[in-house]
Amino acid sequence: MTELRVGVIGGGQLARMMTPPAINLGVTLKVLAEAEGSSAALATTMVGDYTQVDVVAEFAKTVDVITFDHEHVPLIVLEALEAKGVSVQPPSKALAFAQNKLKMRERLGALGLPMPDWAEIHDADSLDKFIEAHGGSAILKTPIGGYDGKGVRVVSSAADAADWLSAEGLAKVGGHLLVEEKVQFVRELAQLSARTPSGDFKAWPLVQTIQENGVCSVVLAPAPSASDGTLEAAAKIARDVADGLGVTGVMAVEMFETADGRLLINELAMRPHNSGHFSIEGSVTSQFEQHIRAVLDLPLGSTLPTNAHAVMVNLLGVDDQNDFLPHYEKAQKAHPEVKIHTYGKGARRGRKMGHVTVVSGNGEWALEEAQRAAKILRNEA
Amino acid sequence: MTELRVGVIGGGQLARMMTPPAINLGVTLKVLAEAEGSSAALATTMVGDYTQVDVVAEFAKTVDVITFDHEHVPLIVLEALEAKGVSVQPPSKALAFAQNKLKMRERLGALGLPMPDWAEIHDADSLDKFIEAHGGSAILKTPIGGYDGKGVRVVSSAADAADWLSAEGLAKVGGHLLVEEKVQFVRELAQLSARTPSGDFKAWPLVQTIQENGVCSVVLAPAPSASDGTLEAAAKIARDVADGLGVTGVMAVEMFETADGRLLINELAMRPHNSGHFSIEGSVTSQFEQHIRAVLDLPLGSTLPTNAHAVMVNLLGVDDQNDFLPHYEKAQKAHPEVKIHTYGKGARRGRKMGHVTVVSGNGEWALEEAQRAAKILRNEA
Repeated sequence: MTELRVGVIGGGQLARMMTPPAINLGVTLKVLAEAEGSSAALATTMVGDYTQVDVVAEFAKTVDVITFDHEHVPLIVLEALEAKGVSVQPPSKALAFAQNKLKMRERLGALGLPMPDWAEIHDADSLDKFIEAHGGSAILKTPIGGYDGKGVRVVSSAADAADWLSAEGLAKVGGHLLVEEKVQFVRELAQLSARTPSGDFKAWPLVQTIQENGVCSVVLAPAPSASDGTLEAAAKIARDVADGLGVTGVMAVEMFETADGRLLINELAMRPHNSGHFSIEGSVTSQFEQHIRAVLDLPLGSTLPTNAHAVMVNLLGVDDQNDFLPHYEKAQKAHPEVKIHTYGKGARRGRKMGHVTVVSGNGEWALEEAQRAAKILRNEA
Repeated sequence: MTELRVGVIGGGQLARMMTPPAINLGVTLKVLAEAEGSSAALATTMVGDYTQVDVVAEFAKTVDVITFDHEHVPLIVLEALEAKGVSVQPPSKALAFAQNKLKMRERLGALGLPMPDWAEIHDADSLDKFIEAHGGSAILKTPIGGYDGKGVRVVSSAADAADWLSAEGLAKVGGHLLVEEKVQFVRELAQLSARTPSGDFKAWPLVQTIQENGVCSVVLAPAPSASDGTLEAAAKIARDVADGLGVTGVMAVEMFETADGRLLINELAMRPHNSGHFSIEGSVTSQFEQHIRAVLDLPLGSTLPTNAHAVMVNLLGVDDQNDFLPHYEKAQKAHPEVKIHTYGKGARRGRKMGHVTVVSGNGEWALEEAQRAAKILRNEA
């Protein structure tokens, strides 16, 4: 029997959500999880430490290509795999930019892509100068290890980041910090796309993301009232980033839209992304199916929408008890159109534990329906 | 952590296709498979003989409800489980009708539901009389054990069924045969529906099925040019059957449409069914998600279509070698809109090994697209 085998490092919800399209396509999905009982337990074939070359190399022997649930696998591990001839998608040279936001900014700058003003920071003086030159506040980031609002701080003087700027703090993040202009944006957008090792590229329609406390809360697909020019510019940015950084698989480019209609690149994710969960029901090809096809270097599927609008609302943990399942009955009875997804994760306040999606010809109705269902699942209605 | 646990007896493609919606919903799906390496291997938690009460009872302890990939579990096993307080959905009293086509005909008759003329047959004489009274040919069926055209024979005299009518032949099938009028139908239709133990009921739009050699080959959803009267009649038949036979979970009612517009019940399937595979992409709630919700007695999801048309084409094994995966590249490149499903089954001529679905506003285009992709996957294009 022919087999197509994809190995995913990391057992989180992204690996979990790759499982359904792998089953549909008849692709064998294997997961190297950090621990037993992960979100992707069903597809887990090995449990081990992804920072150890020998562990990952053993896992790689069981699959045709290695890809990721997260971007935290050390480059040295990936380079060792590549040296053995393992197909790693996206490759280490692309992931290097995802793992270091300073390198990412440098590379995007070299490609002439639009982004906020930024600078590399080693001391309080240079930070204060940057803040002064940019209206009295700025966004300070640790170049490595940040996600979902972690490793990001709004600062109005270097005193706000004394801990990060201390010798000890700087040592933790590789000796540098990244400061960025605090963009006066009108909204945040995300451009999802996929690229194969052979260079096939497809973009989904641009979406709007609404964040709460630095975490994605709502996604509107497509981004309401986006002009053709904005849609084209966003897709071109994604293509330029994917080509310029050598990204393969699914990538999300998070962007700011300014009052004068400019798009500025905020963050990159070189994997399926929360801003693309809408595509499970909202697109002919979901980001998870596309990622599997892309890393196997199979032709990409259509990214056309299945209806005029899709709305996704995240289910964040409300406390240490509620895991949403006890409220399925009430939510499903009131909202038969809502697609509920939960990730099999233990309850914790603020944790991404699931999401709901509504696909409809009526975007306002979809948003209301999704928010009401989420409220019931959170036991707030 | 709260758990909702569904146990499926049988590791075929239907159990396999229940896995993706279970993952999405955060429902724990467990499968009791006949052997290692089944189509539903990913969700298999136990391998054993489903005809043994102790095996099935042990499996039942690990889940909240028992349901099925097929209808072959002996009633005595199911009744023993029910006596222990296990929730079996559909229950043994409903499955009794699925397992014995004579009992099914009797019950449908008692409910006054429309179907072909039929008779219970024990000898050649009564069969010849039935044939003579019905235009010179008839459909002879073994009441138990038939599926996909097996156990069904067109006969024009009792001599065509001498083997089945012999003492040995009759003993094999419980002492009776079922003969049915050979309906001069204009087409075959299937009505998919779901019912919960609490009595919640939902029907999908009526579909047309096109059979080749007794096996479903193409499904057109909705059935082209069906009148409102036909759609309503079909949905009412499904509801009457489900209520009247006490069916829970998904059920497919296969029907003949006659030239004068009557619908006659041909076969019943008390489980997700080939005629409902279109619903994975073609409906807001697929038959597999609905089955999981129904057997857990959760509210049913919307059965509205995701677009005007969905077409499904089966991928039947062409020989003992081709398992379709080597042709993915060509098929996906030419048909980015086609959803390919393969079931991880070894190649065998005529075997149901997968299917493709196209959802579109244009039904003719969808059919062409699906058939072309299937042709490539079969290595015929």
